[in-house]
Amino acid sequence: MAEMFSPIECDEDGLRLLDQRRLPLEESWVRCASAEEVADAIREMVVRGAPAIGIAAAYGFAIGASRAAGRDAGGFERRLSEIGELLTHARPTAVNLRWAVERMRRVAERARAVGESPQRSAKRLEAEAKAIHVEDLAACMALGRHGIDLVPQRSTILTHCNAGGLATSGYGTALGIVRAAVAAGKQVRVFADETRPFLQGARLTAWELLRDGIETVLIADVAAGGLLHAGEIDLVIVGADRVAANGDVANKVGTYGVAVLAHENRVPFYVAAPTSTIDLDCPDGRSIPIEERSADEIVFWGGTRSAPVGVGVRNPAFDVTPARYVSAIVTERGIARAPYTETLAKICGASSDEAVWDL
Amino acid sequence: MAEMFSPIECDEDGLRLLDQRRLPLEESWVRCASAEEVADAIREMVVRGAPAIGIAAAYGFAIGASRAAGRDAGGFERRLSEIGELLTHARPTAVNLRWAVERMRRVAERARAVGESPQRSAKRLEAEAKAIHVEDLAACMALGRHGIDLVPQRSTILTHCNAGGLATSGYGTALGIVRAAVAAGKQVRVFADETRPFLQGARLTAWELLRDGIETVLIADVAAGGLLHAGEIDLVIVGADRVAANGDVANKVGTYGVAVLAHENRVPFYVAAPTSTIDLDCPDGRSIPIEERSADEIVFWGGTRSAPVGVGVRNPAFDVTPARYVSAIVTERGIARAPYTETLAKICGASSDEAVWDL
Repeated sequence: MAEMFSPIECDEDGLRLLDQRRLPLEESWVRCASAEEVADAIREMVVRGAPAIGIAAAYGFAIGASRAAGRDAGGFERRLSEIGELLTHARPTAVNLRWAVERMRRVAERARAVGESPQRSAKRLEAEAKAIHVEDLAACMALGRHGIDLVPQRSTILTHCNAGGLATSGYGTALGIVRAAVAAGKQVRVFADETRPFLQGARLTAWELLRDGIETVLIADVAAGGLLHAGEIDLVIVGADRVAANGDVANKVGTYGVAVLAHENRVPFYVAAPTSTIDLDCPDGRSIPIEERSADEIVFWGGTRSAPVGVGVRNPAFDVTPARYVSAIVTERGIARAPYTETLAKICGASSDEAVWDL
Repeated sequence: MAEMFSPIECDEDGLRLLDQRRLPLEESWVRCASAEEVADAIREMVVRGAPAIGIAAAYGFAIGASRAAGRDAGGFERRLSEIGELLTHARPTAVNLRWAVERMRRVAERARAVGESPQRSAKRLEAEAKAIHVEDLAACMALGRHGIDLVPQRSTILTHCNAGGLATSGYGTALGIVRAAVAAGKQVRVFADETRPFLQGARLTAWELLRDGIETVLIADVAAGGLLHAGEIDLVIVGADRVAANGDVANKVGTYGVAVLAHENRVPFYVAAPTSTIDLDCPDGRSIPIEERSADEIVFWGGTRSAPVGVGVRNPAFDVTPARYVSAIVTERGIARAPYTETLAKICGASSDEAVWDL
């Protein structure tokens, strides 16, 4: 494996995000010096991927706290409330945003409860954001190890969108399993859906897998069905933006189609998701808000209009895959299988991250 | 309906093809003065759509014949054989190319059998090409009328690729049914898959439907599954590049996925195809050659590279939908339903184009 990279870096000068809109042509970084700039970067998809936007939001919260640490306790608290709202609502579907901000808020509340100063609280928040970052890396690596046994010794894996290092702290969820399987000596080839409209597959998945020397074949999303039907795919692994308590999975639009086509052709369909992506408060997929993005993503093509003026557009960024199509959900604590209502509750309630399940 | 257009025009100066690579931004025409230029235009997708490339190939054959009419009988015959091969193999999947060229060849053979001169034969071939053109228009309009009853009074129709006027002589197969239903007073809205990689849906289907004042909503191909699952689509209508004797349908890549998703969500999936697209010599989908097109269609985006160098690419232009997913096949002679082996043979064997079936 090539040297580990992280699409998110934080130092004294603030947050640096690898600009995922410009890959693979250009590796440039966007610097965010305020919570507002972090929220903008999340909204504009400089950073994307459920775990990665959770990490970025945590840093955004910490930066906002640090810049407000000179205020009095009331002003500091009001500012934290403001940036918490701002960051939570930067994008609606991935639960990790809310999860990360809630975790930061709890730290601030604890600090306030024991009468700590804004300065001291801001330091705690900075440490918490770093912890969220490092824990995600550990979770992805553990998740990857749990997934190894799902991957045959020689296999072709189909993935949709980018659930890789770029979507996380650098290792990936779906691609974390690919990396772990390769590290374990398996011969793996990946078919990457290009993933319209943002082309995460073409631009990001292909980029990071080739960087690690893993054979990658790019296809138009529409070609996946024929390959599944022809028996060319051994298994599908995708990430998730939110997993409901019953195992319904919200993920990048098109995932539902891949899941149904895998099911129809008796190909296993696995979801790789850290427990931070599992939302037990959400009973099922109908409760997950689906972000609708700009029509421009559909009607423009490389800066040029490709569709006639006057056409209507629907551009949902995600869809929901019912749990019945999901063969297993791989987490950092082990593998959940149906009935998910039981197994996901058990995995999320486990007291130790070291617990290993295959439920 | 707006004034009827044809993407194919032929006059004394040769063949003019509406350049479908440049729509909707530009309505420009490509002139073809030889069979070779027509074959190039088919290969490069200036003209596309199974019926349209059949018509273009017929004109290409006629133009080639006309230009060789000064040769002696042997030279003329050799040239016809040469251009027949050239045109038949310009693209492999749509059977209409072979069908049209065979029809032209039979006219030439009859002319030769009765001792007609190359000049006289060339005139007959010119008339035959015009007949193929006009018959396609009549067939599409009849097909459209047969399809009206499949369309509910208020309905949302999903289509994939462009099986419209641009893919035929100006009226369309799948979109011919849409046009006929609208003309019959039905309230129809069309969801158009953008259809990667060539964007026929965004560029062509949206263009021609808006031109006729029909409400059109453009979606990324990956969004179709979620809409079908949400119950937002009442029926699917697509065209075909080749229908096998058992009812398996080769059509634009992605059609198979739409068919499976429609089936899974109990939404009717109709194929609109003139009998010229039905290939009774082809027993099933496995016998249909699937064209693999250039990797550049996948790795470049509006002239700019969007995928990293080194990535593999698979770019099949078509896929095969097994007959079990097809609710009905609408032809100019009526509607075929399963078992297709019987009903397609019956429809293709019908002695009159006026025969009306709903089998």
